[in-house]
Amino acid sequence: MKEYLLTAGPTPVPERILLAMAAPMLYHRAPAFMECLKETTEGLKWLFQTKQLVLQLAGSGTAAMDAAVCNFLSKGDRALVVRGGKFGERWGKICQAYGVDCTFIDVEWGRSVDPQLVKQSLDKDPSIKAVYATASETSTGVKHDLEGIARVVRGRDGVLLCVDAITAIGVFDVPMDDWGLDVVCLGSQKALMLPPGLAMIAASEKAWAANAKATLPRFYLDLLREKKSQEKSETAFTPAVSLIVGLRESLRMLREETLEGVWARHDRLAKATRSAAGGLGLELFSSSPTNAITAIRVPGGIDGSAVVRTMKNRYGITIAGGQDHLKGKIVRIAHIGYFSEFDIVTAISGLEMTLSDLGYGIKPGSGVAAAQASFAQTRTSP
Amino acid sequence: MKEYLLTAGPTPVPERILLAMAAPMLYHRAPAFMECLKETTEGLKWLFQTKQLVLQLAGSGTAAMDAAVCNFLSKGDRALVVRGGKFGERWGKICQAYGVDCTFIDVEWGRSVDPQLVKQSLDKDPSIKAVYATASETSTGVKHDLEGIARVVRGRDGVLLCVDAITAIGVFDVPMDDWGLDVVCLGSQKALMLPPGLAMIAASEKAWAANAKATLPRFYLDLLREKKSQEKSETAFTPAVSLIVGLRESLRMLREETLEGVWARHDRLAKATRSAAGGLGLELFSSSPTNAITAIRVPGGIDGSAVVRTMKNRYGITIAGGQDHLKGKIVRIAHIGYFSEFDIVTAISGLEMTLSDLGYGIKPGSGVAAAQASFAQTRTSP
Repeated sequence: MKEYLLTAGPTPVPERILLAMAAPMLYHRAPAFMECLKETTEGLKWLFQTKQLVLQLAGSGTAAMDAAVCNFLSKGDRALVVRGGKFGERWGKICQAYGVDCTFIDVEWGRSVDPQLVKQSLDKDPSIKAVYATASETSTGVKHDLEGIARVVRGRDGVLLCVDAITAIGVFDVPMDDWGLDVVCLGSQKALMLPPGLAMIAASEKAWAANAKATLPRFYLDLLREKKSQEKSETAFTPAVSLIVGLRESLRMLREETLEGVWARHDRLAKATRSAAGGLGLELFSSSPTNAITAIRVPGGIDGSAVVRTMKNRYGITIAGGQDHLKGKIVRIAHIGYFSEFDIVTAISGLEMTLSDLGYGIKPGSGVAAAQASFAQTRTSP
Repeated sequence: MKEYLLTAGPTPVPERILLAMAAPMLYHRAPAFMECLKETTEGLKWLFQTKQLVLQLAGSGTAAMDAAVCNFLSKGDRALVVRGGKFGERWGKICQAYGVDCTFIDVEWGRSVDPQLVKQSLDKDPSIKAVYATASETSTGVKHDLEGIARVVRGRDGVLLCVDAITAIGVFDVPMDDWGLDVVCLGSQKALMLPPGLAMIAASEKAWAANAKATLPRFYLDLLREKKSQEKSETAFTPAVSLIVGLRESLRMLREETLEGVWARHDRLAKATRSAAGGLGLELFSSSPTNAITAIRVPGGIDGSAVVRTMKNRYGITIAGGQDHLKGKIVRIAHIGYFSEFDIVTAISGLEMTLSDLGYGIKPGSGVAAAQASFAQTRTSP
C-alpha cells in the first residue's frame, strides 16, 4: 500500500534532501565538512532571525530543551514554567530533574496562556530567573502568544525567556532578536523537513552572561564548549554529519522559498485544514490554533483511536491521535514541513472515508470542498 | 578528484546502508518503526554479546560516555580513570564536570595500561565506585588489556567497570557478559559503518542497581527512562529514525559476515597495515596496537601534518594525523568499518607517494609488497 506520512515530526523528507544525505560520508575535520557547517550556521541565523550563533547538536529536540535548562541555571534556582500540553510539561520535568524550583502556570489544554499571568507571576516573585515557554504546543495544536510573553519578560534584567520553538520556527514568524528571546530550541524533523537526530539552540547575550554563572553540571550538552568550537566551524564532538549535510540542502530550499513564503505556505495549508474540519461539521480542539498541526475533536460516539487506526490500516495515511487524557478524543493532522495542497486533500479525504466507515454521517467531499475553497481564497500565484 | 576516506570515524558508509537510509521517513510511533527498533535491539545484544538491553540514543558516542557517568554515580563519588590518550582524558573531563572525585592512572601515550595498576588502586582505595577505561584508544592506536582490567574489577561488589568500547566493539572480541563489563558505550560511525549521530549503551544488572542510588541529575540522557521505553520497542524521545533504519541494515550485514568473520577482517587489515609500515622502515607508535587504527611514527625530518595534507590535497586520501602533543609526529590509518584489502593498498600506496614527494627516501612499492605478503598469509578463502 502506498503510504502517506502526515504527522508533525518526523515529517516527510524531500527527495533533494534524501539524495544529499546519501552522498559519500565526509570527515568532520576536513575542509569540505567545515564549509558545510559554516553554511548551515549562517542559514540557521537567517532562519532564527538572530545575530547569535545557532549551535547544532547531535540529539533530539529534547536535547536542546535539556541544554536550555542545564546551561543557564543553578540548583535551587527558581523558574516559571508555562504548561498546557505534553511539551509544556516536559519543561517542568527537565527543570525538576535538575533540582530547579518551579512555579507553574497551568493552562487548560487547548487554550493559549494569557501573557498577563506570566507578568503577574514575575511581579510577585522577583527571584524567578527563567521563564520556560512553548511557542507551538504540538500535543494540543495551540499557538501561544509568544510575542506577548516576550513583551512582559523582556527588560527584566535577571530573567531569561527560554522557548521551545520546535514546531514554530519555519512555520510562523518567531523573530528571536526582535522579540528579545533568550534561548530558542529547534529540532530537525519539523519545518526543516529532515530526519530526527539534530537539535539546534541559540542563546542571547543575556543568556550567555547567565551561562557564566550557571553551575548545573553538563558535559555532552555543554553549550559553551560547543560555541567555542562552532565559532571555528568545528564541533566539540563528532557531529551528525549526514543530518548536517541534509540541513544544508534544507536551508537552501527554504531560502529559495523565502521566510515569508515558508510561513505563507504553512498558513495556507493550516487554514484549509481548519476549513475542512468546519466543512465536515467537526470542531477544532484549540481556541488558538497553530499553523504546525490541526487538532480536531473526534465527534461523539466515535473512538479517535479507531479513526487513526483505520486511516493507517485501510488507507495508508499516518496521522496522530491524542496523548494522555486526550487519547481517543482528538486527531491531529500535520502541515509542518514538506507538505502541499494535495497532501491536505489526501488527509481530509481519508478522514472522510474513515468517518463514513465508522458509521459517522458526513457528506462525502464536504471537507475537501471546504479545503479547496480555502485554497482558492489564499492562492497568491496566478 | 576521487576521494578516499580512511579515518577512524566517520568511516565510509556502504551503499546498502546509504540506500536503506534514503527510504521514505517512518513515524517513530508506528508499527513499521517499532519492528525496526526491535530488530536493532536484538542485533545489538548479539553484537555486544549481552543479555542486557542495548539502549539507542540520538547523540554522538560522547553522549553515551556522559550517560555512563551521570546515570551511575552521585556527586562526590570516587572514580578511577585510566588515561593514556584523548579518549581516556575525556572520561576524566566528564567525571570532573559532574563533581566526581577522580583518581587517575596515567599511562604513557602509545602504551597500554597494566591491569595490576588498576588492582593496586582499587585495593588501596575501597571507596572507589567505578573504573572508567578505554578498550581501544583511537588517538594513539592502542588496545588496552580490557580482559585483564575486567579480571581485577569483577567480583568487587561496589565497583562498576565502565568501558568506552567505541572503536572496539565490532573490531575485536569484547564479550560484555562473559568479562563482566558493567557499562559499555558504542558510537554509530565506527565498526557499524553508519553516519555519526547514534550512541549505544548497555548496562549490567550491577550497574542498574547502582543506577537506582545514583543522584547525579539527568534528563535527556536518563537511561532508566529510555530502558522503560525501549523494553516496549518505543523511545523516550523522538529517535534518530534514519540512523536506526541504517543500523538495521548494518547489523544484517555484520550478521551475514558473522562476529568471528568481522573480527578476522579487522585483524587481517590491521596486520597488513602494520606489515606495510615495517616494509617502509617506519615504526609503529603503539607497543600494543589496536585493530581499529594503525598509528605510525612519522620519520625524522618529515612533518606529519604535511603528510596528511599532501595525501589529501594531491591524492584525495583522507587519513588522520596526531592530536595534541602528537600533532605532526604520527599519522593514523584506519581499518575500522567498511574497508577491504585494496583500501589498505590505496592508503599505503598514497603514503609511499607522499613520502617520496616530501623527499623522504623510501623504496616505492615496499609498503604495498609487505601488505600483500601479509594478506597472503592471513587469507582464509581459496
